[in-house]
Amino acid sequence: MHEKKYPVVLNPNDPRFLTLRSLQTAQHRLRTGLYLIEGVRHLARAIEHRAPIQSVFLEPSVLVNPLGRKLADRLRMCGIPGVRLSGPLYRQITRAAEPQGIGAVARQRWTPLSVLQVTRSSFWLALESVESPGNLGTTLRTAEAVGVDGVFLLGSDCDPHDPAAVRASMGSLFSQKLIACSSREFSDWARSKQVAIVGSSPKGLLDFRGIRYRWPAALLLGSEKRGLSDQLEEVSDYIVRIPMRGDCDSINVSVAAGVLLFEMSSQRPQT
Amino acid sequence: MHEKKYPVVLNPNDPRFLTLRSLQTAQHRLRTGLYLIEGVRHLARAIEHRAPIQSVFLEPSVLVNPLGRKLADRLRMCGIPGVRLSGPLYRQITRAAEPQGIGAVARQRWTPLSVLQVTRSSFWLALESVESPGNLGTTLRTAEAVGVDGVFLLGSDCDPHDPAAVRASMGSLFSQKLIACSSREFSDWARSKQVAIVGSSPKGLLDFRGIRYRWPAALLLGSEKRGLSDQLEEVSDYIVRIPMRGDCDSINVSVAAGVLLFEMSSQRPQT
Repeated sequence: MHEKKYPVVLNPNDPRFLTLRSLQTAQHRLRTGLYLIEGVRHLARAIEHRAPIQSVFLEPSVLVNPLGRKLADRLRMCGIPGVRLSGPLYRQITRAAEPQGIGAVARQRWTPLSVLQVTRSSFWLALESVESPGNLGTTLRTAEAVGVDGVFLLGSDCDPHDPAAVRASMGSLFSQKLIACSSREFSDWARSKQVAIVGSSPKGLLDFRGIRYRWPAALLLGSEKRGLSDQLEEVSDYIVRIPMRGDCDSINVSVAAGVLLFEMSSQRPQT
Repeated sequence: MHEKKYPVVLNPNDPRFLTLRSLQTAQHRLRTGLYLIEGVRHLARAIEHRAPIQSVFLEPSVLVNPLGRKLADRLRMCGIPGVRLSGPLYRQITRAAEPQGIGAVARQRWTPLSVLQVTRSSFWLALESVESPGNLGTTLRTAEAVGVDGVFLLGSDCDPHDPAAVRASMGSLFSQKLIACSSREFSDWARSKQVAIVGSSPKGLLDFRGIRYRWPAALLLGSEKRGLSDQLEEVSDYIVRIPMRGDCDSINVSVAAGVLLFEMSSQRPQT
């Protein structure tokens, strides 16, 4: 087993462990541009999509999955540095209910606004602010399933590299174009490229099923609690609403994103 | 403040505290037929929907929300028994990121299969098995938003009274008919009442948008990992599929439920 050659880290004050653990915080992810990937399935998808893996961490006693062991071998052979963590240190890094004993540090990939190609059938998702990283990751997964061209993250609290978002995205994070910019940059870009901005709000006057969407389009969602900001409501070309029954005034934001993404996707022009 | 009259519990071995804590486990919820409700908004909705509250627990030092204090007063005046927990004991019960200092024990309400009324526009949701209580609660919330007549929970691991499910349902748990029965009882009931069973599976041959649903109908979903069982696939009148792009083969189960519930709901006959 190649991973046996990685140095062992047992001391909780070892800088290699402290660096790993620090990537659980938004502040260190922002400062370093790195993030954590954990578990066999996620790491396999990251490699498949050529995510820039910087280093690997293992806990050999729980790394029993044959694919996981193969991945560890492969990374080692490619010269990726790594460490073997003791059980207690590994458990401080993992969020998995059933830890698989393998994870990696990868460099974040962001796509600059300036390189985006817009065609008449382009379809984008823009998130103003999503408080729950689980909801954010779930939404990235749905965005991949409907084949959006990329996801705009407009608020500083939209961190798709939070470990809970990475997990919930089930690997969709690695295959998608992510664009971080301000609300203003987003709306200026949309205007200049004639991309219709479709805002979603309980206050919207249009039933999301009742209209023919104009293309190219970007679906824009606000936060769980506050919805869309006034600023982004103003720049929206339409504001659609998901009609609800009973005394229910809202649904989970990732469910709302899914319902709207699939509806819009069904109206998307063929390329 | 009326809640000051409730006895104080400081000892972690006090049976009143142990009873509360035990309701975090499925086993004790099943044995007692009780469950925990936590937080002001959830408790307010429970009372609004006449959930049978058995007792209340407070942590007066964090109960600062005026509505929360009013609820506590009201429950006390209605003769509902209660306790005041110390901070450390309360924190063992709460799952909230920002605990609000109030919660209750309520009796579970289940609707027997035999009393269900079926009309030509009836719409049901049936869940074979949902592993994540968060996904289950989120799905109950969506089910309320589309106005289903009730939710069947077919597997023993579908526990809508898990604290995480109660939270994610955002109160929808209290307003809905919940029916617990076996897969066989469900399919026999649907057959006898001429309710069309619409199974959902990635293996389904029908695009969920491409068909006209027959009514009354029940949407049937399987578990996150295993999907629908063979047994329930066999009794389904249709099996629909949500088409996906790229190398994405699945979306989150609560998102899938939302997409299908809203599509079917748009075809539901007017009553």
